[in-house]
Amino acid sequence: MASVFGGVEGGGTHSKAVLVSADGKILAETNGPSTNHWLVGVDKCIEAINEMVVRAKVEAGLDPNIPLCSLGMSLSGGEQKDAIALMKERFPGLSQHYFITADTIGAMATASNCGGVVLISGTGSNCKLLNPDGSQVGCGGWGHMMGDEGSAFWISHLAVKTVFDAVDSLAAPPHDVTHVRKAMEEYFKVSDQMGMLPHLYSDFQKSHFAGFCRKLAEGAEAGDALCQFVFTQAGRALAKHVEAVLPAAQESLLSGDLGLPILCVGSVWKSWELMKSGFTDVLTAVASSDKLKGRFHGYSLLTLQQSSALGGASLGAQSLGVAFAMDYAANANVFYTQRLNSQ
Amino acid sequence: MASVFGGVEGGGTHSKAVLVSADGKILAETNGPSTNHWLVGVDKCIEAINEMVVRAKVEAGLDPNIPLCSLGMSLSGGEQKDAIALMKERFPGLSQHYFITADTIGAMATASNCGGVVLISGTGSNCKLLNPDGSQVGCGGWGHMMGDEGSAFWISHLAVKTVFDAVDSLAAPPHDVTHVRKAMEEYFKVSDQMGMLPHLYSDFQKSHFAGFCRKLAEGAEAGDALCQFVFTQAGRALAKHVEAVLPAAQESLLSGDLGLPILCVGSVWKSWELMKSGFTDVLTAVASSDKLKGRFHGYSLLTLQQSSALGGASLGAQSLGVAFAMDYAANANVFYTQRLNSQ
Repeated sequence: MASVFGGVEGGGTHSKAVLVSADGKILAETNGPSTNHWLVGVDKCIEAINEMVVRAKVEAGLDPNIPLCSLGMSLSGGEQKDAIALMKERFPGLSQHYFITADTIGAMATASNCGGVVLISGTGSNCKLLNPDGSQVGCGGWGHMMGDEGSAFWISHLAVKTVFDAVDSLAAPPHDVTHVRKAMEEYFKVSDQMGMLPHLYSDFQKSHFAGFCRKLAEGAEAGDALCQFVFTQAGRALAKHVEAVLPAAQESLLSGDLGLPILCVGSVWKSWELMKSGFTDVLTAVASSDKLKGRFHGYSLLTLQQSSALGGASLGAQSLGVAFAMDYAANANVFYTQRLNSQ
Repeated sequence: MASVFGGVEGGGTHSKAVLVSADGKILAETNGPSTNHWLVGVDKCIEAINEMVVRAKVEAGLDPNIPLCSLGMSLSGGEQKDAIALMKERFPGLSQHYFITADTIGAMATASNCGGVVLISGTGSNCKLLNPDGSQVGCGGWGHMMGDEGSAFWISHLAVKTVFDAVDSLAAPPHDVTHVRKAMEEYFKVSDQMGMLPHLYSDFQKSHFAGFCRKLAEGAEAGDALCQFVFTQAGRALAKHVEAVLPAAQESLLSGDLGLPILCVGSVWKSWELMKSGFTDVLTAVASSDKLKGRFHGYSLLTLQQSSALGGASLGAQSLGVAFAMDYAANANVFYTQRLNSQ
């Protein structure tokens, strides 16, 4: 199977695998559970990856015991130095070569080879600026204990914390909590604050906690002010990640017709309309500050049309010196452009 | 052993057990590890309790196989409904009767039978107002995922998060982070942000993370502005818990010579001088707001001279209708009084 390249997109809730032929054709795609080793452990992570790739081989009509040429993994838990040795040992028929990178890098490799900003908001969040010269600057990506601002987990947590603080009289909520409290009690199947403790500690599952975000999006769309507020705050938080990496951008990333390309990855971006005011407010203020000395004239938000498993596969092949065809223009679409009057 | 009563104080880092005779004399005291079931699980929690009590029996010259009359447990993890049945089953020689309550209640039972506010800041934090009529109002106590404001964990987390955000350019730090960053790298034995991830996820131990607070107290005492800042913020956060429960206080709690009695429990209170400005600022503002309609004229901070295991023992005995002598005046000392001009 010398000419088949595998790729994996590993998320905090879902994962994907693809198999690609030497001419860039997608042979098979499969889905699986979280492969974030910080959340599920290294063993479950590599087992889920093997299982998805084996299914993809079968789906493509290939012998599952013949190794792929390479397997390029773009994982939300980032690089895990022991994972490759463990995979070679436990699954000798999986792949000849392995390549692991962060989810941000695999996403960008799916959309472009010219660089830009990758802004992830799924179960967790992360941001990376990749310059055309290969230099990188990151912001965030530290997980729910030290960041994840603007992610589904963070939005869910902000909403629940607002309810807790209102019930405790510790902080006045920005809007009435009645709807969010009821939605929380329904989603988590609890009747009070005490009932939430197992969901936060003994039975904590980040992806389940983060899944409450979908209910909040429904509440926001139905007009609840507190639900709308948490998404506006998420928009602000995500834009602040862009603000953090912007000063490191090379000129060519900022001077294109569409402004800075920002590749938006993760399911929270389905709620872009709810985040828009917070996001645009922050970046409008950045453009009119003197921090960027008139270099920031606008930006475009892009969304992937293919799983970033494809970028992972491409990077895995490149690590062997093989380049298969990538149709970047088809792999990403612009869904929003803001032009800004910088000072 | 019909006339020996046991008590346990269960913290997030350390625990204590005491044995008390029917005339209120302390027969033995022992120390042990965390007995917070949210942090260590129910099995380790009850094993640690049994082990401390057995050692206390031996220390008091008692047969460890003869059950205590009662065992009153004042636990930072709060009531755990299955614990008593498990203890009876696994340790039949431990005690005839059991009583479990929250750490706030056991602390207050050590200091007074007239009520007041209990304000805990140890590994975690919690606040409870107990009125003379027995009514209670709480604020906080939800653990590090949903609260713990003003606790050692929270102070440590705030300091580390300030470093992360400064390195990421996500938020400007209020003061230079050089000292805290170096202290963090030394305490956690890491060289960068990536190194912190095992301490936050795979190898997370709340009590170890919270232990960084001691290093921050040293930094504050040596004059580092960011270390001082996080303690001032902790003082503010703790005072906001008092502000939250204050409106529910019965008149007699507010009208005494020393003002509202606030029983301060937990090792963060050793750094009172560092928290003082933040704490007093918040409560000064509360007194001059119209929220309390001139009812709040000041407060006194008290510290326990005995472990709240003693209060646990007393409550356990009371649950059997037995009252042993408690010298409340000797069990708690006033260490600070602020008189306020309310409107």
